Amino acid sequence: MISKLVEKIQKTNAPIVVGLDPKLSFIPDGMLARCYEEKGRSPEGAAEAFWQFNKEIIDSIYDIVPAVKPQIAMYEELGIPGLITFKKTVDYAKEKGLIVIGDVKRGDIGSTSESYAVGHLGAVTIDGQKFAGFDEDFATVNPYLGSDGVKPFIDVCNSQDRGIFVLVKTSNPSSGEFQDRLIDGKPLYEIVGEQVEKWGALSMDGAYSNVGAVVGATYPEMGKVLRDIMPHAYILVPGYGAQGGKGKDLVHFFNSDGLGAIINSSRGIIAAWKSEVYSEFADGRVGDAARKAALDMKKDIEEALS
Amino acid sequence: MISKLVEKIQKTNAPIVVGLDPKLSFIPDGMLARCYEEKGRSPEGAAEAFWQFNKEIIDSIYDIVPAVKPQIAMYEELGIPGLITFKKTVDYAKEKGLIVIGDVKRGDIGSTSESYAVGHLGAVTIDGQKFAGFDEDFATVNPYLGSDGVKPFIDVCNSQDRGIFVLVKTSNPSSGEFQDRLIDGKPLYEIVGEQVEKWGALSMDGAYSNVGAVVGATYPEMGKVLRDIMPHAYILVPGYGAQGGKGKDLVHFFNSDGLGAIINSSRGIIAAWKSEVYSEFADGRVGDAARKAALDMKKDIEEALS
Repeated sequence: MISKLVEKIQKTNAPIVVGLDPKLSFIPDGMLARCYEEKGRSPEGAAEAFWQFNKEIIDSIYDIVPAVKPQIAMYEELGIPGLITFKKTVDYAKEKGLIVIGDVKRGDIGSTSESYAVGHLGAVTIDGQKFAGFDEDFATVNPYLGSDGVKPFIDVCNSQDRGIFVLVKTSNPSSGEFQDRLIDGKPLYEIVGEQVEKWGALSMDGAYSNVGAVVGATYPEMGKVLRDIMPHAYILVPGYGAQGGKGKDLVHFFNSDGLGAIINSSRGIIAAWKSEVYSEFADGRVGDAARKAALDMKKDIEEALS
Repeated sequence: MISKLVEKIQKTNAPIVVGLDPKLSFIPDGMLARCYEEKGRSPEGAAEAFWQFNKEIIDSIYDIVPAVKPQIAMYEELGIPGLITFKKTVDYAKEKGLIVIGDVKRGDIGSTSESYAVGHLGAVTIDGQKFAGFDEDFATVNPYLGSDGVKPFIDVCNSQDRGIFVLVKTSNPSSGEFQDRLIDGKPLYEIVGEQVEKWGALSMDGAYSNVGAVVGATYPEMGKVLRDIMPHAYILVPGYGAQGGKGKDLVHFFNSDGLGAIINSSRGIIAAWKSEVYSEFADGRVGDAARKAALDMKKDIEEALS
């Protein structure tokens, strides 16, 4: 699967993934009112608004970026109706040719991780017939439980041609609390990074592995070290834009051939219409603003890498 | 919320939680055939079978144990129909007076953890009205992202009277890969345990905190150390029974007053009807076997603690 993502990145010339992390406050009043009218002032109405919002964004960016990354927590917050929108969003994005990274951060003991892996990346077999649950192309995975929590995901990567990104160094302010603690002189995130490179050897797909890593844009110096430790891991980089990461911070996440990293922006793109920078779209043109913001982000990264 | 759990444990005299982790292979042929007949040989049919199975178990044990712990991965594996069964199971167990621990192992950066916390333990506000998503009493939380990933859960514990159990030392064979690594001479799980005690101070509820810890029965010596490090944390102990933990291993997880720990058994109870020990129920009496197995487990723990 990673080779497909690399191909899409080269084709669009944009190492960018758009985070589909909707919030009610991002939805224009008119759109929200219509959805409440149709489905009720309820989780069903809110989930419909998330769906209409996502659809407008996908329709506006599918030809200029390779991938989207819906954050399942935003949907889970609304319960079942929200998860139905999550699923519709995954399906629609794939229909439009986008690669879908499910930001689910799952991880459990072996037999349980297997269920998560099947539910998100694989298919359950009932009476010899296969049924996909959520059917993302990639999922994010939490490493705290160690190899037996991660390997069931790798098995599904191999059998279904899918991929994962394992949390190594996250973008949030308190990520250092455990991840930066020194073990034999090395921070925990490096130990996890070394393990990601080992796990990656179990699922190579071209020059890169289907086992990638999450490293926050907010920690560029650590990105540099981790780039060297994990030569075969694609790095998914959250934290650009709204969380404070800048284009110039991103250089170290890439290899010299311009590959090896994909940068996520969520709010910076999907809520661009509300930002002062894009005030020409303040009348609620969510999609047009998202497209402009994605193109600006592409330029910012291009300049940083050149 | 932890005071309610303690009260239920004292009332039933059973520090036991039944893990509702259904698998198709646990469901008697007749029950499965009826559900497929009614809802199709599909995820809908399988989810109906999980629901009928769970209902039979809940009906058979609700008066002798204080709590159940559905593992959401088993439901997520079936996609949306599975999650509808998860929700029905949570609601039904609460109706029958059981406390529900959602084994969801969520955790993300702050703003995202907030969505998970609201979705699982709280309620989303739409136009001034509150709607609960999954509405568990407790959720399990992954600590890898540090305090800003955990605090949004603690906020919901305080505002909605709920609780969490943070993964400290998990029961699986490879849990030591990262959790046992030494930091300043102390294993990571102790560092996380110290943090759990600190987080716990933010949400005290009687003698214990709404912030508990997960420590596997498979590591009794570590349980002893962690019991001392986290005097105010209730310990949720998986790994008893099918994973290899025995009654005598459990002593160290409890305080001298017989409180402080709750032991989970999943397969050992819900699939008891398939085990040789309970062959009198091999004709498919899932509920009767579960009740017998839960009573036997209660006795095993009583003997170990006396």
